[in-house]
Amino acid sequence: MTANSLELNPVATIQSPFKSRFGIPRQSGLVPDAIGWIEPHSPWHRAEAWAGIEQYTHLWLIWQVHDRPHQPVSSVRPPRLGGNARLGVFATRSPARPNPLGLSLVRLLAVEHQAGQVRIRVSGLDLLDGTPIIDIKPHIAFTDCPPNSHSGFAQNEPERLRVDWSMLPHDEALRLNDHQRLVITQTLSLDPRPAFHDDPERVYGCPLFEFDVQFRVENGTLFVLGLNPFP
Amino acid sequence: MTANSLELNPVATIQSPFKSRFGIPRQSGLVPDAIGWIEPHSPWHRAEAWAGIEQYTHLWLIWQVHDRPHQPVSSVRPPRLGGNARLGVFATRSPARPNPLGLSLVRLLAVEHQAGQVRIRVSGLDLLDGTPIIDIKPHIAFTDCPPNSHSGFAQNEPERLRVDWSMLPHDEALRLNDHQRLVITQTLSLDPRPAFHDDPERVYGCPLFEFDVQFRVENGTLFVLGLNPFP
Repeated sequence: MTANSLELNPVATIQSPFKSRFGIPRQSGLVPDAIGWIEPHSPWHRAEAWAGIEQYTHLWLIWQVHDRPHQPVSSVRPPRLGGNARLGVFATRSPARPNPLGLSLVRLLAVEHQAGQVRIRVSGLDLLDGTPIIDIKPHIAFTDCPPNSHSGFAQNEPERLRVDWSMLPHDEALRLNDHQRLVITQTLSLDPRPAFHDDPERVYGCPLFEFDVQFRVENGTLFVLGLNPFP
Repeated sequence: MTANSLELNPVATIQSPFKSRFGIPRQSGLVPDAIGWIEPHSPWHRAEAWAGIEQYTHLWLIWQVHDRPHQPVSSVRPPRLGGNARLGVFATRSPARPNPLGLSLVRLLAVEHQAGQVRIRVSGLDLLDGTPIIDIKPHIAFTDCPPNSHSGFAQNEPERLRVDWSMLPHDEALRLNDHQRLVITQTLSLDPRPAFHDDPERVYGCPLFEFDVQFRVENGTLFVLGLNPFP
């Protein structure tokens, strides 16, 4: 600790369908059916700390980037720009930044009370399973949504790939329930491949739920090829 | 530091017209002409870290609540509810919270480059002068502004007081420029008095710019009475 540093402690952990960094949506809300639980730590698990939360539809999560060594950088190459344009780290939401904090907006689905413990069900996640949550604040539309906001290259949602399930063997497809299939479709349509990768033969694996989902991409269509157990 | 704690270091300091906690707007954007500078610390003062920032109109600031001892609480009494309703801390943006982090949206006005140093001019501040900034991220409307957000008691902007300048002695009024008068009007219209205070005789002082602005409130009108030097 230096004189000006600040020490924080997580108040909760997120439970999420995203089991590795690969494939996580690059903003919240892009996979609307990515559902999980905010599981508060003691002493913040008591109802008192959450009273009134149900009057909001959306919550901000400030979370700790914890899936990589902390290596602050000044500039990054956003995947959405093809990985060849360099922007200042403060002009992006890249997780590689001076202080490893993420900011995500999630939809509040339900508040569960059980044996003196509160859990919050949320959707639209872009967080790795197990991510430490540093703070939760309500979304307040009149202050958070200025009518004239403009965001340059990030003004609109990214384009999506078509997701084709016809190549998945029938016996493997049966392992998925409808919800899992929906979330996998929404996630893979965002094209999790690294920038510059465009080899139609190459097979990738993306860990979602308890599966490592195998796929390849050709001419704007993503073909789901198989489901391996994960981890 | 415990095993799970996180140590952060400020990347910048804000320069703001708000010189004490009293009178600071309770959300960003409520005093649109509250203008200040983000002044990055070394090594984040170099242009590289900010390249591309000009393509955004609004920025998120994650900042450290540093004007009071850190006393985490589970529930608070929001001033807007008259100070008599208790809500969970996570259902408010109260600065008294488990981890002392604030979240504010500001408008980006200008990026100034001078002698290898970047400064960012922003408006709509709700931060105390000298507040440490932990992170700056661009506002991305498609993800930050869900069309169906609802915020309970905070759905709309707070009501405003009428601000009457006619009781301010002429020689004191001459000390203000037009910009200062505008910011003071916007700030005082939000009624900085503590909840439960409704004594029309009581005179309050609110430090703004280099003045301690004296006022009293009667029947929905705030009368500016005097300008004392501050600090």
